[in-house]
Amino acid sequence: MTDQNLAAGARARPFLNPRSIAIIGASGDENKIGGRPIRYLKLAGYQGPIYPINPTREVVQGLKAYPSLGAVDAEVDLVVIAVPAQDVLSAVEACVAKGVNGAMIFSSGFAEVNEEGAAMQEAIVQAARDGGVPLLGPNCAGTFNTRAGLLATFTSGIVDKPPRVGSIALVSQSGAFGIHMIVLAAERDLGLSMCLTSGNQTDVDVAEALAYVADDPDTEVIAVCLEGVRNPDRLLAAVESARSKGKPVIVLKLGRSQAGARAAASHTASLAGSDEIFDAILRQHHVYRVYSIDELMDVAYACSLRRYPVNDKVGIITVSGGVGILLADQVEEAGLKVAEMPPESQAAIRQLLPFAAAGNPVDVTAQVIQQPDLVGPMFEHMLTGGGYGSAIAFFTHIARNKDLFGKLLPHFEAVARRHTDRFLVLSTLAGPEMRKKLEAMGYAVFEDPGRAVKAIRALVRFREAFDAVAPEAPLPLAEGARHVQRGTVYDEAQAKELLAAAGIPCTREEVATSVQGAVHAAARVGFPLVMKIVSPEIQHKSEIGGVLLNVGSTEEVRQGYATLMDRAQTRAAGAKVTGVLLAQLVKGGVETILGVSRDPVFGPMVMFGLGGVFVEVLKDVTFRRAPFGRDEARRMIREVKGYAMLQGVRGAPPADEEALVEAIARLSVFAAAQGDALESVDINPFIVLPRGQGAFAVDAFIETRP
Amino acid sequence: MTDQNLAAGARARPFLNPRSIAIIGASGDENKIGGRPIRYLKLAGYQGPIYPINPTREVVQGLKAYPSLGAVDAEVDLVVIAVPAQDVLSAVEACVAKGVNGAMIFSSGFAEVNEEGAAMQEAIVQAARDGGVPLLGPNCAGTFNTRAGLLATFTSGIVDKPPRVGSIALVSQSGAFGIHMIVLAAERDLGLSMCLTSGNQTDVDVAEALAYVADDPDTEVIAVCLEGVRNPDRLLAAVESARSKGKPVIVLKLGRSQAGARAAASHTASLAGSDEIFDAILRQHHVYRVYSIDELMDVAYACSLRRYPVNDKVGIITVSGGVGILLADQVEEAGLKVAEMPPESQAAIRQLLPFAAAGNPVDVTAQVIQQPDLVGPMFEHMLTGGGYGSAIAFFTHIARNKDLFGKLLPHFEAVARRHTDRFLVLSTLAGPEMRKKLEAMGYAVFEDPGRAVKAIRALVRFREAFDAVAPEAPLPLAEGARHVQRGTVYDEAQAKELLAAAGIPCTREEVATSVQGAVHAAARVGFPLVMKIVSPEIQHKSEIGGVLLNVGSTEEVRQGYATLMDRAQTRAAGAKVTGVLLAQLVKGGVETILGVSRDPVFGPMVMFGLGGVFVEVLKDVTFRRAPFGRDEARRMIREVKGYAMLQGVRGAPPADEEALVEAIARLSVFAAAQGDALESVDINPFIVLPRGQGAFAVDAFIETRP
Repeated sequence: MTDQNLAAGARARPFLNPRSIAIIGASGDENKIGGRPIRYLKLAGYQGPIYPINPTREVVQGLKAYPSLGAVDAEVDLVVIAVPAQDVLSAVEACVAKGVNGAMIFSSGFAEVNEEGAAMQEAIVQAARDGGVPLLGPNCAGTFNTRAGLLATFTSGIVDKPPRVGSIALVSQSGAFGIHMIVLAAERDLGLSMCLTSGNQTDVDVAEALAYVADDPDTEVIAVCLEGVRNPDRLLAAVESARSKGKPVIVLKLGRSQAGARAAASHTASLAGSDEIFDAILRQHHVYRVYSIDELMDVAYACSLRRYPVNDKVGIITVSGGVGILLADQVEEAGLKVAEMPPESQAAIRQLLPFAAAGNPVDVTAQVIQQPDLVGPMFEHMLTGGGYGSAIAFFTHIARNKDLFGKLLPHFEAVARRHTDRFLVLSTLAGPEMRKKLEAMGYAVFEDPGRAVKAIRALVRFREAFDAVAPEAPLPLAEGARHVQRGTVYDEAQAKELLAAAGIPCTREEVATSVQGAVHAAARVGFPLVMKIVSPEIQHKSEIGGVLLNVGSTEEVRQGYATLMDRAQTRAAGAKVTGVLLAQLVKGGVETILGVSRDPVFGPMVMFGLGGVFVEVLKDVTFRRAPFGRDEARRMIREVKGYAMLQGVRGAPPADEEALVEAIARLSVFAAAQGDALESVDINPFIVLPRGQGAFAVDAFIETRP
Repeated sequence: MTDQNLAAGARARPFLNPRSIAIIGASGDENKIGGRPIRYLKLAGYQGPIYPINPTREVVQGLKAYPSLGAVDAEVDLVVIAVPAQDVLSAVEACVAKGVNGAMIFSSGFAEVNEEGAAMQEAIVQAARDGGVPLLGPNCAGTFNTRAGLLATFTSGIVDKPPRVGSIALVSQSGAFGIHMIVLAAERDLGLSMCLTSGNQTDVDVAEALAYVADDPDTEVIAVCLEGVRNPDRLLAAVESARSKGKPVIVLKLGRSQAGARAAASHTASLAGSDEIFDAILRQHHVYRVYSIDELMDVAYACSLRRYPVNDKVGIITVSGGVGILLADQVEEAGLKVAEMPPESQAAIRQLLPFAAAGNPVDVTAQVIQQPDLVGPMFEHMLTGGGYGSAIAFFTHIARNKDLFGKLLPHFEAVARRHTDRFLVLSTLAGPEMRKKLEAMGYAVFEDPGRAVKAIRALVRFREAFDAVAPEAPLPLAEGARHVQRGTVYDEAQAKELLAAAGIPCTREEVATSVQGAVHAAARVGFPLVMKIVSPEIQHKSEIGGVLLNVGSTEEVRQGYATLMDRAQTRAAGAKVTGVLLAQLVKGGVETILGVSRDPVFGPMVMFGLGGVFVEVLKDVTFRRAPFGRDEARRMIREVKGYAMLQGVRGAPPADEEALVEAIARLSVFAAAQGDALESVDINPFIVLPRGQGAFAVDAFIETRP
């Protein structure tokens, strides 16, 4: 655990594992917002001291009450504030005076409501910050820790059936969403470790909670519902901390569409950010993204069984040929493999049941009713012979048939006992009791087998994430690399000089400021070449005829120089002309585009795409947060749809992918080294020649921040 | 109903609505395959006569038994055959002798098992066909009709809790799959009308069952699980019959991936066919395709409420801002609209609850606990003001809170009563009883609101399908259109002549067989022009240098003629050369590709795509079954990803889309008119010039069948 991470997680500790709790606004009425947390803490069996703060009562819900926080004659770890909005500031001041370790504010009526509320919120946050008290909320729905008996919330939903003790932590900015997930977890009998909702998230945030649960020994799975990100470094450090400990992080991001972002803006005032960027960040950091509540719960459930498949091969055993086909479709569509079984295993299965389909799916057919004892050996042959990292057994409604299923159970149990390294799904319409029994054997139970397939995809990705070594280090910054200056305008030649110094290959070129200089430069650059006007004030050179292609001789250089100067004077009158660029003409190759743009949340993001219609019509580009190493650059290149262009189409030779990899990785390091000065880089085209011949920036533009 | 359809449906009638039933292989043991159907029919209250056939008993399960089918002294409508495979043939022969209307074979051990079984199956089918007895199966799991008390199956799954009477019909080739759906329907309390499984589908098939239920007055929703298609015309006629009556057809297709198709091949020996083609056919015929069992059940459920939204705008009202954002994301991603409410409605909502988000989603916040009476007016403002065709109300676990939900119910009821034309979803964790109550009010209840969004997408598509007039007629075949001859090889010039005669514009061109002829032809075609070798034996002309571009003068025509002849002799020695083609040079425009290919199931399919990387790298093409009219052609053009190229990118003018529409529609008519003679057409490129300037086939290749 890094120091940074320790510090981040430490601030969330009082909210998730408090040693003592005071409630400001404590009520004797069990159904009031200030009464419920006391009732719930008692109900959940919280072991630490509870201090109700109430100026008018000596006893609240059977507990000794105190007229003020200051009157409590012991350390107070966490304070829950449940008073009207206008009284929150003085409550926070009392927390500061008492020197508590955390203040959690249930009260709403702040920035989520109007300007006035925002001003009140600002005052509260300032007071807490000045006084060194970590804040959770306002407008938060509370926290929850099954082992500590912590049920610090005012919601009614989770009291009748609180979730059981387990290994899944839930972290949600949205309070109602977090509570809904807790209720669903109880419904599905998923065991939880802890849960935190951060509400308006003025101070302690989702990232800090994530850092804490990543370190919590009882938490093995982390499910997160995110709106915006304020401190990306903190979030990503926490995510990496979880990954390094083999804990999956599953994220549902709210506000990914335009309509969603609009809704988010009217919700808790989060910076939604570009979804493409966010998605790239998650991929880069091995976070698994889900898109619905069902999927979030399914994947968390599957992870909680802690059987991450050793490969992406899925075995299917079924009593319905039809569902077997459907599953094969779904597995393949999920990017997993329906690998066939080796012939000897197929033969072994056919020996047991001559007319069974034995390839994968294995179809045991309705014969299972007559010969239930075949299921064990068939399943066993499949797992042993096929080497599947996971397997789905589809047994329709058979779990309802007690007689028949009773005969199958010992077989299922034996198979699970022998294959503890596989992820095994039993898909059957089991009631809650049978479900528990099967889970105890080691099966994940999914009524809809298709949902199991999606969960397996997530498990396979997590296995890859856990197996990954620590993130690859970025390349070192090139020795001659220079910094851009804020507020400076660079012309094409200067931009390419900066890039070349950072290790990004550019076409051979020189700037000439006279006809004679151009002739000498041409001799060094070599024919044929390209001549271009150089002026920081003319961005679209070709529009004024400022580019001459295929210049083939000294005489053409002379004429060209005069033509360009003339065009600049007549067509871009007044523009400052630095000179004329003479550049090597790159023929053939594949046009790509490299770029850097500044994301308001994540800072410099590197973009890669194929040129032409790929970027212009299909927006077929991909992003990564700078800096990163060669492996990440290679993944970028391979994930665009047009990748085949680089492999060579219509008889074209394969492109020099390694040169491209190197350039992207170098660009990421260059971008990251610029601090706040860089607004964007646009290298278009960046031409990739056939393998072994390199790749070159042909045109480039660098924009700095003002 | 067409005559064809009537005939098709009529053959399925005895299986779905029999007047009397005999069981060959009837058993006194209620748990045997020949005993179960009798027990189930009695249980389900079948009203017609049941005739157990058993040579050794006088009474079977309390019913008078008959030694043979012939011994039954009344009309027998349906016979259920439940005897070992080797005895099935004589049972079918008895059916023929008796002149029954349908024979349903439960027995397995036929084509699904091995060659021997396939031979037995062939004999049975032949006997039934010769005798004029419609067959269902073998290896089928039976049929089911809730209103008729028909429960003609041997499966155990549906006896404990048979599904209730309702409006959903299920048709499945796969038996176990069909039964699984029935069990799920009972589980979710979906009402069914009837169900048929067709097993090895040797005679009566899914299409015939579909035709029957499309006509059944009690069926309002049709859910189908398909593997292969044998008689596409019958299937599509049944689908169109359902659409014209406002009955949605929902299809789950098995075997869409390679792995799935491999599994299907080992299942009931169906022709899987290309999934792209199948998908195009479904779109063309307004069938809604689903990809999982859950989705099939969800969409069928939503349809059964018979509220097809009048538009694609979805209103969202929520107690969780977070879930509101998620829903907005999901709605937009589903291609539906999260339209904002008009300002006056927003103002009205804010007057009720000043800090509510009022744009859409409407966030009623936790304030609902304090002021439940706000929900009614807010919901009402939303529906009235926003004009949403459907609405999702997310109320997390509030249905669990009897007090609070009791206060909300009258509001929900009033809203539903006033808006019977809207599709209203209530997403809350309701138990079965509350669920029924809400459904009775007119709500669809979905615990996961994201699944409701997917269902709404389907409903909107169905509404569009029902509103569509009868399928647009194809264009008439062009007057001069000619037929291709089987086994004939056409050269480029002949291919283009055939296409031009069918109304597909081709470049102006002539074939010359001498230098002098070429010079005269050039004068008529006009400069600049293209010269190409013409030979049915040289398909890739450019590879041997057989194409000369941009020929600008009479002198160049002379030289060109000599050059081409020389190259043909030296580089394609022995190839028969017909002459030299002189064709108009088309400059500019957008390159597209039109094609026809012959699908083994669906016959001639027309393909459209953009040229270059779109087809070569991205496989961005789309298909339709020939023939079709202009509207369908227009839909094809607009659904490819590269469509923007035709609208004009990088300042290019918009292309002549109508000329392209016309050509595609004409090509479809030409293809359909060729009967079995045509194998494929490849028009590449088909260049579309700017609007008003037309579009031209520049190269074309026609392949006929041997």
